[in-house]
Amino acid sequence: MKFNSSEIFKLVADFVREDVGRGDITTEALASNGVSARGKFLAEERLVLAGLEMADAVFGVLEASVEIEAFASDGDWVKKDDCFARVSGPADVLLTGERVALNLMRHLSGIATLTRQYVDAIQGTHAVVIDTRMTTPGLRLLERYAVMSGGGHNYRMGLDDGILIQNNHVALVGGIKEAIERLREAGLDYLHKIEVEVSGRADLAEALGAGADVILFTRLVPEQLNALVQYAKSERADVLLGVTGEVPLDQARAYAETGIDLLAVDTLSGAARAAPISFKISTM
Amino acid sequence: MKFNSSEIFKLVADFVREDVGRGDITTEALASNGVSARGKFLAEERLVLAGLEMADAVFGVLEASVEIEAFASDGDWVKKDDCFARVSGPADVLLTGERVALNLMRHLSGIATLTRQYVDAIQGTHAVVIDTRMTTPGLRLLERYAVMSGGGHNYRMGLDDGILIQNNHVALVGGIKEAIERLREAGLDYLHKIEVEVSGRADLAEALGAGADVILFTRLVPEQLNALVQYAKSERADVLLGVTGEVPLDQARAYAETGIDLLAVDTLSGAARAAPISFKISTM
Amino acid sequence: MKFNSSEIFKLVADFVREDVGRGDITTEALASNGVSARGKFLAEERLVLAGLEMADAVFGVLEASVEIEAFASDGDWVKKDDCFARVSGPADVLLTGERVALNLMRHLSGIATLTRQYVDAIQGTHAVVIDTRMTTPGLRLLERYAVMSGGGHNYRMGLDDGILIQNNHVALVGGIKEAIERLREAGLDYLHKIEVEVSGRADLAEALGAGADVILFTRLVPEQLNALVQYAKSERADVLLGVTGEVPLDQARAYAETGIDLLAVDTLSGAARAAPISFKISTM
Amino acid sequence: MKFNSSEIFKLVADFVREDVGRGDITTEALASNGVSARGKFLAEERLVLAGLEMADAVFGVLEASVEIEAFASDGDWVKKDDCFARVSGPADVLLTGERVALNLMRHLSGIATLTRQYVDAIQGTHAVVIDTRMTTPGLRLLERYAVMSGGGHNYRMGLDDGILIQNNHVALVGGIKEAIERLREAGLDYLHKIEVEVSGRADLAEALGAGADVILFTRLVPEQLNALVQYAKSERADVLLGVTGEVPLDQARAYAETGIDLLAVDTLSGAARAAPISFKISTM
Amino acid sequence: MKFNSSEIFKLVADFVREDVGRGDITTEALASNGVSARGKFLAEERLVLAGLEMADAVFGVLEASVEIEAFASDGDWVKKDDCFARVSGPADVLLTGERVALNLMRHLSGIATLTRQYVDAIQGTHAVVIDTRMTTPGLRLLERYAVMSGGGHNYRMGLDDGILIQNNHVALVGGIKEAIERLREAGLDYLHKIEVEVSGRADLAEALGAGADVILFTRLVPEQLNALVQYAKSERADVLLGVTGEVPLDQARAYAETGIDLLAVDTLSGAARAAPISFKISTM
Amino acid sequence: MKFNSSEIFKLVADFVREDVGRGDITTEALASNGVSARGKFLAEERLVLAGLEMADAVFGVLEASVEIEAFASDGDWVKKDDCFARVSGPADVLLTGERVALNLMRHLSGIATLTRQYVDAIQGTHAVVIDTRMTTPGLRLLERYAVMSGGGHNYRMGLDDGILIQNNHVALVGGIKEAIERLREAGLDYLHKIEVEVSGRADLAEALGAGADVILFTRLVPEQLNALVQYAKSERADVLLGVTGEVPLDQARAYAETGIDLLAVDTLSGAARAAPISFKISTM
Repeated sequence: MKFNSSEIFKLVADFVREDVGRGDITTEALASNGVSARGKFLAEERLVLAGLEMADAVFGVLEASVEIEAFASDGDWVKKDDCFARVSGPADVLLTGERVALNLMRHLSGIATLTRQYVDAIQGTHAVVIDTRMTTPGLRLLERYAVMSGGGHNYRMGLDDGILIQNNHVALVGGIKEAIERLREAGLDYLHKIEVEVSGRADLAEALGAGADVILFTRLVPEQLNALVQYAKSERADVLLGVTGEVPLDQARAYAETGIDLLAVDTLSGAARAAPISFKISTM
Repeated sequence: MKFNSSEIFKLVADFVREDVGRGDITTEALASNGVSARGKFLAEERLVLAGLEMADAVFGVLEASVEIEAFASDGDWVKKDDCFARVSGPADVLLTGERVALNLMRHLSGIATLTRQYVDAIQGTHAVVIDTRMTTPGLRLLERYAVMSGGGHNYRMGLDDGILIQNNHVALVGGIKEAIERLREAGLDYLHKIEVEVSGRADLAEALGAGADVILFTRLVPEQLNALVQYAKSERADVLLGVTGEVPLDQARAYAETGIDLLAVDTLSGAARAAPISFKISTM
Repeated sequence: MKFNSSEIFKLVADFVREDVGRGDITTEALASNGVSARGKFLAEERLVLAGLEMADAVFGVLEASVEIEAFASDGDWVKKDDCFARVSGPADVLLTGERVALNLMRHLSGIATLTRQYVDAIQGTHAVVIDTRMTTPGLRLLERYAVMSGGGHNYRMGLDDGILIQNNHVALVGGIKEAIERLREAGLDYLHKIEVEVSGRADLAEALGAGADVILFTRLVPEQLNALVQYAKSERADVLLGVTGEVPLDQARAYAETGIDLLAVDTLSGAARAAPISFKISTM
Repeated sequence: MKFNSSEIFKLVADFVREDVGRGDITTEALASNGVSARGKFLAEERLVLAGLEMADAVFGVLEASVEIEAFASDGDWVKKDDCFARVSGPADVLLTGERVALNLMRHLSGIATLTRQYVDAIQGTHAVVIDTRMTTPGLRLLERYAVMSGGGHNYRMGLDDGILIQNNHVALVGGIKEAIERLREAGLDYLHKIEVEVSGRADLAEALGAGADVILFTRLVPEQLNALVQYAKSERADVLLGVTGEVPLDQARAYAETGIDLLAVDTLSGAARAAPISFKISTM
Repeated sequence: MKFNSSEIFKLVADFVREDVGRGDITTEALASNGVSARGKFLAEERLVLAGLEMADAVFGVLEASVEIEAFASDGDWVKKDDCFARVSGPADVLLTGERVALNLMRHLSGIATLTRQYVDAIQGTHAVVIDTRMTTPGLRLLERYAVMSGGGHNYRMGLDDGILIQNNHVALVGGIKEAIERLREAGLDYLHKIEVEVSGRADLAEALGAGADVILFTRLVPEQLNALVQYAKSERADVLLGVTGEVPLDQARAYAETGIDLLAVDTLSGAARAAPISFKISTM
Repeated sequence: MKFNSSEIFKLVADFVREDVGRGDITTEALASNGVSARGKFLAEERLVLAGLEMADAVFGVLEASVEIEAFASDGDWVKKDDCFARVSGPADVLLTGERVALNLMRHLSGIATLTRQYVDAIQGTHAVVIDTRMTTPGLRLLERYAVMSGGGHNYRMGLDDGILIQNNHVALVGGIKEAIERLREAGLDYLHKIEVEVSGRADLAEALGAGADVILFTRLVPEQLNALVQYAKSERADVLLGVTGEVPLDQARAYAETGIDLLAVDTLSGAARAAPISFKISTM
């Protein structure tokens, strides 16, 4: 995932406006004398880094001359107490931008770190970790970026770039087969794979029979899943199989070992704890 | 905290745009035939509710005719498996709006629930739970609202509505006393209390002597804090005292029992787990 | 394709602002006395209608009370001289909104009409007409809607909702096979079909061999295409086949009869002539 | 017509957002490795160029470092197969920006080319080609620029910068004379010429008698027009005379030779075919 | 001047946001209990009213249910101590919106009142009062509306809707005659009158000779002006004549009596004192 | 008060758009040939300067290459006929930007000059001049900056960054004491001082007794005020005392000499006359 520079500036400028409002009254009174300073970003625990470019943009929004020097890249493990980036510029700009930069990096690195834990947990299996649309409102693109930094893959960006037939759709339409046919009539299969969420053998059989490209299992424990995966593979070797839902970290491997291709973890955003990162300022 | 209706519509419209993008392709193909449906919001665990008005706005952005009927209010405890709200409208609108409404309510109710746990933990002490500027970028107003729904109070909205002298400011200016004097010269004390972050006795004495209105202790364990609180109270009875930092939930009471007035918990946003809420749709 | 009402209002308000600017000086001086009037939209030639809802929104932006009554729907053929819609409201609002409403409907109906001509031209074959990303800047969603009104299907909405490997990509990566492998490594095949643009037999063979889901032929005359389609079908029965490029209307059938599934016409927007629609106002 | 640089950047950024959405998924997977490339813009037919500055801005929005080198200027005739501009920069930026840049230049050059055909058709007569408010919604400023690049002049930018009394106004007010008087009472004649649309001798006589500054004839064939122009000139030598409406290209000269000053062509935007321009990328 | 309702809502919502920011903390704590109240707008001096519709929109932005009842219209003289409008709604909404509504009405009524004083001062002469581009940044449309409410006329809305050749232009081009010729070559005289600013007889003669439509005299005392007006009228009876500049109120009549058509007063915005209007709230 | 550079650019770009609209038609026709010019800003009277940075941004929005050279700073007294800044760049950019730059500097310097007059009037007393929320809609931040340039201090930025209990609040709540208690219950005193507006002895006594931090007297003549100030000081030495209202300049000293701390002048924006500044352009 790559951001164009004008997009990221616009996004971050909104975050700066949210925190700075009509001005940083404390800092303006105390530190607007042009003194230069240096700030160090430090990891207070071992973490997977995400958000350096966004942190850089925070200071850039405030003053073009601020420079950030990075000693690690997004996606890297950073050790406890490591300084992974250094910022130089007017002291007041560093003080004013500090909190927004930290809030961004802490949030994104938290997601990246949790994602990496899932990735590590299923290492050696065939499956990959993917995200879902359960993201924090307003932050989807950034959280997707954090998932990629953590070694996961992205799934649907929104309701407009992928098909997923869920229970509620099936209930309205009357059946998986009919749903798939309608999507084909609408021409949606020219571009997109047809994906269906199933939670039992009957639904699975119907989806496979109707030509679904991807099956996402939901609401199943690993043992139940195992049987269905075997069945699906025996019926159609070409279909992609995945699991979606909350998937606790300690069960991730059990799920992955059923032979699925995709482990779609609902809670990468909602269960990640902000990563502990601090910022120390010193005058130059 | 109260939102004016045009502000909330604008905010939520951005979240809808983020998820729906150029259109919900699955639902448009399957359910745009005008069938009416009803959706129920269910708590999958006991939780403190927050975000009903925002969820309502999600559907309103998509179609003015959708109505939400609530059986609980923001700030209420909702029991596991309770249906706390019901939405009626075109089936496709419910399907398209479901995820954004859930993402909002899950995030905000998660924060409200965690806040309430802190509030309950310190019940009977003199202290109140307040939030800090460590919020998710773009969501400060909503997260503040969630903290209030949980029974907490709000602190600084941004850098522009309150003064806080932190270590970095002191280092630049040369001392707490000089910092307070400069803020007074700038006329900031006409409107705002002067607040100082301290982590030791020398700083505390300097802040009290210079006339700080509020002292926020940081980086102290409860025992250390206890001594400083006694000292501060003996020196100046009129000063407000608080603690700020991560404050683990299981230590909240120990901190509160030192006699502080304010328990500023950094992690209300960053450590809250999204509350488990689901949405079930049925045709009418 | 369905627009949510707040989106369409926002889009159309921009178009109104573009034309009305700081106010309709002629009309304000001549007709702001509150007189009611009625306006009729007339087809000056036989055409396929598209844009009624947008025209309605134009008047709604200017004054909420204006009402539009439609005698045909988007996608219908309207005969020469037919009045297909009637608007009632203050005379000045009709006069001020007329041009924007007409510009929108003329542009969109032009595209719908041209699309229908392609659809009719290939009727009875297996192929369907689809659009491409060659749209007028700023109007993609509306032009897509017009294509659907004309009986076509939509293809990629943007660079973010579908994969298409084009010559330039292949040149950079070194081969179609390698390109497909990289897309798979990036996990893009979980959601999207892998589509490849080819213009000769070697490329086609490489794409088929590497497992492409969709082949779009380009820069071929119908006879050349015919041979390649036969070859592709003999190799892989499951692959979707299409043609993309300018595809003159009088050759559309020849292309379609090669047995392709998709006729992607580049020029639906760029070659469509605005449909002749006029608006007659009379006082009530 | 001159654009200030911040305006054009803002406009083009919206077009880029429309096409790129949440990211160019194909190119990010295949070409985000920092390889430099060069792209050539080629005319596939003889055309009048318009939109170079806008194309330049497209790449600038994506990445500040991209540079465009032009071998022709807007308004120049470019021969078939000529390379009129060359872009250098990261390969992925060229691939991602290509379509928006082409869509813009093709649309604008199409209008410029058609305008030039009208200008050439009436060369040697007294008349000039001017545009009208029949433009593509959202693109008026750019299309005006294209008309100027083609050698035409601009007319009203919107309803706010010029007066035009049309049939509908006259019907409401009760007469051309009364309309002109009201506009004078409103003080609109301090700044603007008073222009009246007429389609017959009675209206013409009334407009001339009431002191109209400009007469725009409409719905007349050249022979009818001829007589009215002679009459108008004999009555008032100082009045400007024009024709407005669709004016087919092959009748343009006949209209111009009646002695009018202005040939206002309604169809410069709506009838122009996108100019065939292509873009070839090669690595450096 | 007429505002469309979506434009005015958008404009006023920005003003509300400026004042209310993240919420009216005092009122939320004291009056958010749903009590209804009534507020009266009172004139503390005799004044010409302007801005009722904008004041209404202020409350509408905060809460759709608030209603305003007006006892006077924009443009009316209101006597000292008169209540000219009454608002009913939730007490907190009235308290929160009061200041923005007052700031708007005070500013606009101040301009309307000053304009009316000019209009009255020159009553009986041939001249009318018009405004100029010397307006408060961001408020031009509203200030223009206030001038009209005061009985004045509007002049240029911006640099794009009227021509004015000023000294600086003449200096660059080399002469008034050449400037007028260039404007004609650019086709600007099809729509706009050609206006020239002159401050002496030589310039006046050149402008008249070159066919200027409007002459604006500047930097002249009434006696000097008198002579030039006589000269201009003797040379060209059809030309409009005006005066522009600060024009003190006590000299307005002397200027008007020279026989000019237009009195363009630069200081209608910049010299107007905010009109004294107050707002009294009582519970219902 | 300090503006971040992206904020000021955004704000000023809106002002430029308001004046330039679709383009400066006069200047484009006369001066778009690339000639360089120089413009001088001149004070036509003695004034306190404010707005240089904003004027600079006006030209920067139009063309990045324009440079401004200043011979004075915001807050300085500038003598009559002094040139305090010089701009160099393309002639057309100077001509197009001139009016917006002047409108901004004239408005802000007018406020700065009036503020300085108040500051000078009370020199030697204990009081300082502060502003109020009676500002021009849309310009609060800039007007605040002008007040600071004039030597005043800023007070509330909006309803969200300070508490002020006014008559209307007291009437709703039932008493000053109860109002203060409610604000404390809402936790607003953690950050903000509690300020109360009073106009008589009973209110004053209640406010002092309930622990108000700041008292703002209103609707009192200096003699009445004198007695209340003495009383307040005898009761509570620690409370800040101020006066708010229109405060005519010639009574400012009498008010200040009562011993108050704050002189909150309502009319700094509304009564300030635009400062006379002109701009002379010459070619280079």
